[in-house]
Amino acid sequence: MIKVGVVGGTGYTGVELLRLVAQHPEMRLQVITSRKEAGLPVADLFPSLRGHVGLAFSDPSRAPLSDCDLVFFATPNGVAMEQVRELLEAGVRVIDLAADFRLKDIAEWERWYGMTHACPDLVDGAVYGLPEVNRDPIRSANLVANPGCYPTAVQLGFLPLVETGVIDMGSLIADAKSGVSGAGRKAEIPILMAESADNFKAYGVTGHRHLPEISQGLQHAAGHPVGLTFVPHLTPMIRGIHATLYGRLVRPNIDLQALFEARYANEPFVDVLPPGSHPETRSVRASNICRIAVHRPQGGNTVVVLSVIDNLVKGAAGQALHNANLMFDWPETLGLTQLPILP
Amino acid sequence: MIKVGVVGGTGYTGVELLRLVAQHPEMRLQVITSRKEAGLPVADLFPSLRGHVGLAFSDPSRAPLSDCDLVFFATPNGVAMEQVRELLEAGVRVIDLAADFRLKDIAEWERWYGMTHACPDLVDGAVYGLPEVNRDPIRSANLVANPGCYPTAVQLGFLPLVETGVIDMGSLIADAKSGVSGAGRKAEIPILMAESADNFKAYGVTGHRHLPEISQGLQHAAGHPVGLTFVPHLTPMIRGIHATLYGRLVRPNIDLQALFEARYANEPFVDVLPPGSHPETRSVRASNICRIAVHRPQGGNTVVVLSVIDNLVKGAAGQALHNANLMFDWPETLGLTQLPILP
Amino acid sequence: MIKVGVVGGTGYTGVELLRLVAQHPEMRLQVITSRKEAGLPVADLFPSLRGHVGLAFSDPSRAPLSDCDLVFFATPNGVAMEQVRELLEAGVRVIDLAADFRLKDIAEWERWYGMTHACPDLVDGAVYGLPEVNRDPIRSANLVANPGCYPTAVQLGFLPLVETGVIDMGSLIADAKSGVSGAGRKAEIPILMAESADNFKAYGVTGHRHLPEISQGLQHAAGHPVGLTFVPHLTPMIRGIHATLYGRLVRPNIDLQALFEARYANEPFVDVLPPGSHPETRSVRASNICRIAVHRPQGGNTVVVLSVIDNLVKGAAGQALHNANLMFDWPETLGLTQLPILP
Amino acid sequence: MIKVGVVGGTGYTGVELLRLVAQHPEMRLQVITSRKEAGLPVADLFPSLRGHVGLAFSDPSRAPLSDCDLVFFATPNGVAMEQVRELLEAGVRVIDLAADFRLKDIAEWERWYGMTHACPDLVDGAVYGLPEVNRDPIRSANLVANPGCYPTAVQLGFLPLVETGVIDMGSLIADAKSGVSGAGRKAEIPILMAESADNFKAYGVTGHRHLPEISQGLQHAAGHPVGLTFVPHLTPMIRGIHATLYGRLVRPNIDLQALFEARYANEPFVDVLPPGSHPETRSVRASNICRIAVHRPQGGNTVVVLSVIDNLVKGAAGQALHNANLMFDWPETLGLTQLPILP
Repeated sequence: MIKVGVVGGTGYTGVELLRLVAQHPEMRLQVITSRKEAGLPVADLFPSLRGHVGLAFSDPSRAPLSDCDLVFFATPNGVAMEQVRELLEAGVRVIDLAADFRLKDIAEWERWYGMTHACPDLVDGAVYGLPEVNRDPIRSANLVANPGCYPTAVQLGFLPLVETGVIDMGSLIADAKSGVSGAGRKAEIPILMAESADNFKAYGVTGHRHLPEISQGLQHAAGHPVGLTFVPHLTPMIRGIHATLYGRLVRPNIDLQALFEARYANEPFVDVLPPGSHPETRSVRASNICRIAVHRPQGGNTVVVLSVIDNLVKGAAGQALHNANLMFDWPETLGLTQLPILP
Repeated sequence: MIKVGVVGGTGYTGVELLRLVAQHPEMRLQVITSRKEAGLPVADLFPSLRGHVGLAFSDPSRAPLSDCDLVFFATPNGVAMEQVRELLEAGVRVIDLAADFRLKDIAEWERWYGMTHACPDLVDGAVYGLPEVNRDPIRSANLVANPGCYPTAVQLGFLPLVETGVIDMGSLIADAKSGVSGAGRKAEIPILMAESADNFKAYGVTGHRHLPEISQGLQHAAGHPVGLTFVPHLTPMIRGIHATLYGRLVRPNIDLQALFEARYANEPFVDVLPPGSHPETRSVRASNICRIAVHRPQGGNTVVVLSVIDNLVKGAAGQALHNANLMFDWPETLGLTQLPILP
Repeated sequence: MIKVGVVGGTGYTGVELLRLVAQHPEMRLQVITSRKEAGLPVADLFPSLRGHVGLAFSDPSRAPLSDCDLVFFATPNGVAMEQVRELLEAGVRVIDLAADFRLKDIAEWERWYGMTHACPDLVDGAVYGLPEVNRDPIRSANLVANPGCYPTAVQLGFLPLVETGVIDMGSLIADAKSGVSGAGRKAEIPILMAESADNFKAYGVTGHRHLPEISQGLQHAAGHPVGLTFVPHLTPMIRGIHATLYGRLVRPNIDLQALFEARYANEPFVDVLPPGSHPETRSVRASNICRIAVHRPQGGNTVVVLSVIDNLVKGAAGQALHNANLMFDWPETLGLTQLPILP
Repeated sequence: MIKVGVVGGTGYTGVELLRLVAQHPEMRLQVITSRKEAGLPVADLFPSLRGHVGLAFSDPSRAPLSDCDLVFFATPNGVAMEQVRELLEAGVRVIDLAADFRLKDIAEWERWYGMTHACPDLVDGAVYGLPEVNRDPIRSANLVANPGCYPTAVQLGFLPLVETGVIDMGSLIADAKSGVSGAGRKAEIPILMAESADNFKAYGVTGHRHLPEISQGLQHAAGHPVGLTFVPHLTPMIRGIHATLYGRLVRPNIDLQALFEARYANEPFVDVLPPGSHPETRSVRASNICRIAVHRPQGGNTVVVLSVIDNLVKGAAGQALHNANLMFDWPETLGLTQLPILP
């Protein structure tokens, strides 16, 4: 049983983390911070946690985070980088669910996130927490950069193709659709229900922060730079990401289904569907699974991959727990076996 | 570990039962039947169950139900009553999630359900499976009539008032709102998304089958007949029931909050909220909890009770498992501790 | 063709007003103000108006409102009362879509709205703009207080019963459900889509500002005070109000259907449905109609009235145009004949 | 004033057609047929039409369609082709909103639609009713094949690029998202609200009937065959199509914004948005407009076009009325000037 701290527990990633930590047999939630809600019992803000989370939010400045074995940051970008060094030096292991340690190229990070990085020297040692790629480094990591939601769905969908070089690396297209919880629990007009329900739109076509993260991951898998067009869309649902991925086959004789099945044969959280399938986002709702189908329409040279995750679980809090399971040498699926909620 | 059978597993109550049974540590799903889908792997119909339910649907006529220790009927009304006798005689215990054994008055049942009852002699021995009322009889029951979704939410909200006689029994009003999964997984136009999303309507104002069930329960609690107006509404959400209950106080000095808290102090699945609360349906989504708040607007003589449940869990499959836990003498919350999914 | 001004055009009431004014054959939109958005073309904020509204938002302090023949206030409560006197003195007629002039009892108003009324002397001369009650006074009014959304649906549903005294006036119950646009276009967390979709809750049970407004109207219709319990609910849809109204019959022999049909026989915007009907909110979506059904479940003494409107049209902007049609002696339905949008 | 008949008025295309025809100043609805609902007043099925459509459904076999000047078929595929010849011979002009006359290649049609074409000789004379392409032929047509919803959104988005040859014709990608009304008013489980709300999925990746229709149109515009990958998705909203289109630029110096603006400068129903825009489906809800934005992310060689329509209006009934306006030499926008409904 380890002692766990959560910094920034009032967003959707935070409350999802609390839900999962509360059900994890080896974790005891020790402290949860929120500048704005300090003093308020967590279950008053989130009645769904009544009876399961007895703590109140602590003021971040006085929270005993150094006593924890593991601290999750579920904060806005730019917060974790200010506090991580102190925790690491105190021997605390850290998983950052925000973007502070995801990009290895500091200049690129600073350009996309519009701020100066507070601890560039720690970035190199941080491990990108996509277990399907970095399982071993994660085990021994002290600082894990938990992947973004879109990057998780898109990379898992592209990886088998990119690692084997069966598609043209210069013309990848990721058309991704996210539920509104992906935009966070923020008081902003465009994500009001009266604005976003019964409505569909693209956004960030000119450039989205997950683009460099995805590119970095695919480039690493390919061994050389990739050309990627990434178009995210806001979808009138609460949870879920559906990535529709397009690539041009350069090795037309490949058995795509076999390729995907082999790549993920031993992955507990990636499920390759039978040929001809169309995964639904609800088939993974509230669970840590990524379901994938691969198509080759009309037998042509375009590969279409469909990849779905729950953005708050496999795209955030669940993947963070998966990383923790690796870091503490527990079974990978510990505390993550909840079945999807359908309907 | 007992052997469990599920008759009729293709509806929403059925798939929810499968989700919960698959996570119950003392149950092994042995057989699941469906006339229409016989031979089809369950996980092909419900991909959310991939990896957790390996069975295929069996043809009901050849399913080895008598080998089970417990059989759940998640069938349309009128099916269980044709098969229960044989199972009971074979020593199988039965929980019917449909309405066949809910009403003690056979004539009343036949009037509301429009058919002749196949085994009226078994009705008397059936126990109405609302644990908060019938805990002890359920323990020893061989045949449990699992309550309807509306009746669960409405009765739990009214019980403290009715049992103590603090309100006028002749003028109870239950204004109830249900998500569309309450209408079942049936190919019917009014529950298409294009019909029921972004729309709200009452239905069955002239008479709904849950009216006699609620009346029977409240009458039993009161010790004499009650006058109830019940108006159900279809709400554009998937899961959840919100019952808004109105009663006229006849003992105005009563401390309503204390009354409710005392009544449910030892109930693991009923949560009385602090004064002034407004429970949300999502605060119980996918969990077996009923949350209740009691109000007395402007200090007048009208009591307003707000009661929320997930219609598929506390209103169906979860309550059925709760009943099973009682019948097999397991801890009441076994397999039912999943936290609500929010957002 | 009159010159029309709109003060506060960035909320949902405002944009709906713009949609309707733009299609009204006798109105020319002259000026539209917004402190926050001054200078921004209206159609940049609301692309749905591209090609139909060419104006930009003006700064309120410099907007030539006195040149208008008619000014609509689609502002938060408390704004209109600061500006109306000057406009009236300049000969401009005014329709306030907020609550500043709805309650005749100034002390009551100040208590519910938490501010001192800026022009109590004007309240008496203001006409409550419910055409079905005040048709003639509206014709000659210079200042119209446009009713609230809930009050419109609830009063129209209760009026035939209350005016004729066929129900007990001491125990009226209005259980009302509103779509989220009723909460306005405000950056607030509880009305985010991730909070309010797939969710249902009551709110304001202890007291809602529309309670005194409804009570005042029903009391006026009854000729004496009424006892009303009003419980509003937030419903996961964009537009629409469904009021479910309960009353106890004191004249059991009354023909309720005939009563309702007679009351609204000549009303262009109230549609009494055939016996046994359940009006849906979508049957009036985007139109100025109120549809009503009256029931007497099981032939008992409880009357149940179902009343639906579009909160932004008959509950706000459409009713305001109806009032304007009366004030300027145009046909009542001018510019208001758009059919509901279904599905 | 012409006499109009509607064959098959019980689907969403049909009821939308009725809404628009009822508001068209030059059309009088003379007859509306439905085999299943013969005898039923239309407004009983669709209360939104109460007071505006007084007709009852007629049995198709006895409906006086030949007396009409114009007949719309809002029927399933394969119905119109059985009846059109007789009507044309009687001098009636026909607009088919289904697919019977959309594909010029009869063999191709028979392969995709799985039936033998009943009147292949009439196909050649039918005009594909996309006014932005076929304005003049439509004016004189007696038989118009109204385009499909996806084909309308996709073609309008690709046309400026394809007509000028600025993109590679061999690698077009159309990732399209539709609201559930596009699936029709049919009693089918996958489009139940409990199945399709809060859910997102692709479908028909292996082949969708709109693929050959789009290909035919683009090929015609390009002057030679095109290679198109088309992936439709079901989106949890009622109305709306969002097409996200990808092409590879072969003339990188082109000013894309100017190209699109010039192409649609005189089109009353196509609105090219300013650079950097992201059109929302709700910005065209219930109106006959297509809004388009063109992007070139990161200044690369991939063009991204975003194109939105209301599938029931510009994608069906509204475009049919536009065609009728052309055929009868009325102003193109007659009866089609309703503003979009937002929120």
